[in-house]
Amino acid sequence: MTLLLGVDNGGTRVKLLLAREMEGRLEHVRTADAPTPRGPSAMDELAALTRTFLADDRADAFGLTVAGILDEASGLVATSANMRWLEGLAPARELSDRLGIPGEAVQDGVATAIAEAVLGAGRGADDVFVLALGTGIAGAHVVDGSVRKGAHGGAGEIGHIATGGGEKCTCGQSGCLESLLGGTRLGARWDRARGVDAQSTALDVVLAAERGDGTARAILDEATTALANGLLSLMAMIDPGVIVIGGGLSNSPAWIIDPAIEKAHRRATFHAVPPIIRAQLGSWAGAWGAVLTAAHSRSGERRLERTELV
Amino acid sequence: MTLLLGVDNGGTRVKLLLAREMEGRLEHVRTADAPTPRGPSAMDELAALTRTFLADDRADAFGLTVAGILDEASGLVATSANMRWLEGLAPARELSDRLGIPGEAVQDGVATAIAEAVLGAGRGADDVFVLALGTGIAGAHVVDGSVRKGAHGGAGEIGHIATGGGEKCTCGQSGCLESLLGGTRLGARWDRARGVDAQSTALDVVLAAERGDGTARAILDEATTALANGLLSLMAMIDPGVIVIGGGLSNSPAWIIDPAIEKAHRRATFHAVPPIIRAQLGSWAGAWGAVLTAAHSRSGERRLERTELV
Ligand SMILES: [Zn+2]
Ligand SMILES: [Zn+2]
Repeated sequence: MTLLLGVDNGGTRVKLLLAREMEGRLEHVRTADAPTPRGPSAMDELAALTRTFLADDRADAFGLTVAGILDEASGLVATSANMRWLEGLAPARELSDRLGIPGEAVQDGVATAIAEAVLGAGRGADDVFVLALGTGIAGAHVVDGSVRKGAHGGAGEIGHIATGGGEKCTCGQSGCLESLLGGTRLGARWDRARGVDAQSTALDVVLAAERGDGTARAILDEATTALANGLLSLMAMIDPGVIVIGGGLSNSPAWIIDPAIEKAHRRATFHAVPPIIRAQLGSWAGAWGAVLTAAHSRSGERRLERTELV
Repeated sequence: MTLLLGVDNGGTRVKLLLAREMEGRLEHVRTADAPTPRGPSAMDELAALTRTFLADDRADAFGLTVAGILDEASGLVATSANMRWLEGLAPARELSDRLGIPGEAVQDGVATAIAEAVLGAGRGADDVFVLALGTGIAGAHVVDGSVRKGAHGGAGEIGHIATGGGEKCTCGQSGCLESLLGGTRLGARWDRARGVDAQSTALDVVLAAERGDGTARAILDEATTALANGLLSLMAMIDPGVIVIGGGLSNSPAWIIDPAIEKAHRRATFHAVPPIIRAQLGSWAGAWGAVLTAAHSRSGERRLERTELV
């Protein structure tokens, strides 16, 4: 039996998850979360938090998520927009030195994707594409528990493929999926369509659509058409075995995911439409991905059956 | 030393290629081609052709291309639009029984892609995406000498991702890359723009553009913009190490490939633009892919360095 620690070091909260692994099966032991330690003493505080959480248990390995760009070979954080104090550090080594436990870092989006693919909505499938619909739109193709990163670490950017629209995107291109569906863009597009400056959120648009607001419905209709196009392009290019959709926008399935899935099915021609499923691990996906990273750092094997979750 | 036979059984010509393999290096021995045997006696005639070609040489294994849908597990041809007599047959087994040589079948597009990736324009790279711009547009992602086929065998269909146009495509969708750039579509679009019924070919459009025809140039400009969009979407989703472009349309680089590459570079933002190279093996790519398939059937290894080609 092995004890594995997942540390999901997010922008506002750090989530700790201890799991027991036996014969390839993972079991939840306990969880805790706290405000993310910030600034130059962040690693000391994170180590102290972790020690308190572990108490008398001795973890065999940990995984630690990084909200930023991680150089996998060196373990160094290249950039982190929200956690500047991590830049230039190798956070797994820092934490390992303080705790006396071996560990490995993993990019937060990668952790979320492998957790959903292996333990969540994609479990049992070898070939899973995970989309995260949030402020931006991210994607990761997970095959046999590992993310296919591409030749330069840039694969999976489904938010920035062309979908036929003409909106300027944050990436500098025009007509990206994210420019029509990204969380901040939905609110801005609705405000613009009404000629107001209300800083509306995506949730505001969804609530207005539920109330019968025609403008909000039209904006969501355009966004879900773009998402359907993106899903069809994904099937054409990559042909995944399962598609999992998570992120904040997936919490309004009736207005975002369900119509997009329905349109994708209706418009599919030669495509093999795979099961398209909502993510299941919610806000603990990153911590479970960190646990899988810990398991991988010990055994080189990411495929672990789940027995029980939080 | 091993003697490997490639049989590229195309719609009109069958190409035969004998190669010598030693310590992972491939050397061309000789080639021949003949009209493709047709009808119920096709396999007998193909075996006779092959025996004559081999003469006193004894090949250790052969690879045989199939122009159609091949079920890899059984080796059976599911459908072949141009070679109906192959449907329901296992052509590699048929040829193997007649020649007394072990062999394996390979889909023609797969053969061309692995040949260009391993021996042609992509040689030396581990991660190559090969596009074939012909009547239709096909693609294959070749990693370490094998094609990534996706969960249902449908991956690589870059011709049928949305590019922002509105043209009806042969696949039933609208706005596919192929609907703007496919070989037959270029001619048809030019004829329609001029209001004539001339059954123009893609080459007619290119020649007209060279003569300064503004309509032809506009049609090609729209097509190369669509191709640039497709290349950028490919980089965003798959992030290949090298992109190779072949097929009949790649023979007019000044009007098709070069402008598309230039636009892709100009419009790239976050993308890692890889080397984008013209295919190099020409009409012998399929036969070389068959040789690689023969090598693979013997050793399980597709990565072979090339020493010399036709
Ligand atoms: Zn974008
Ligand atoms: Zn199409």
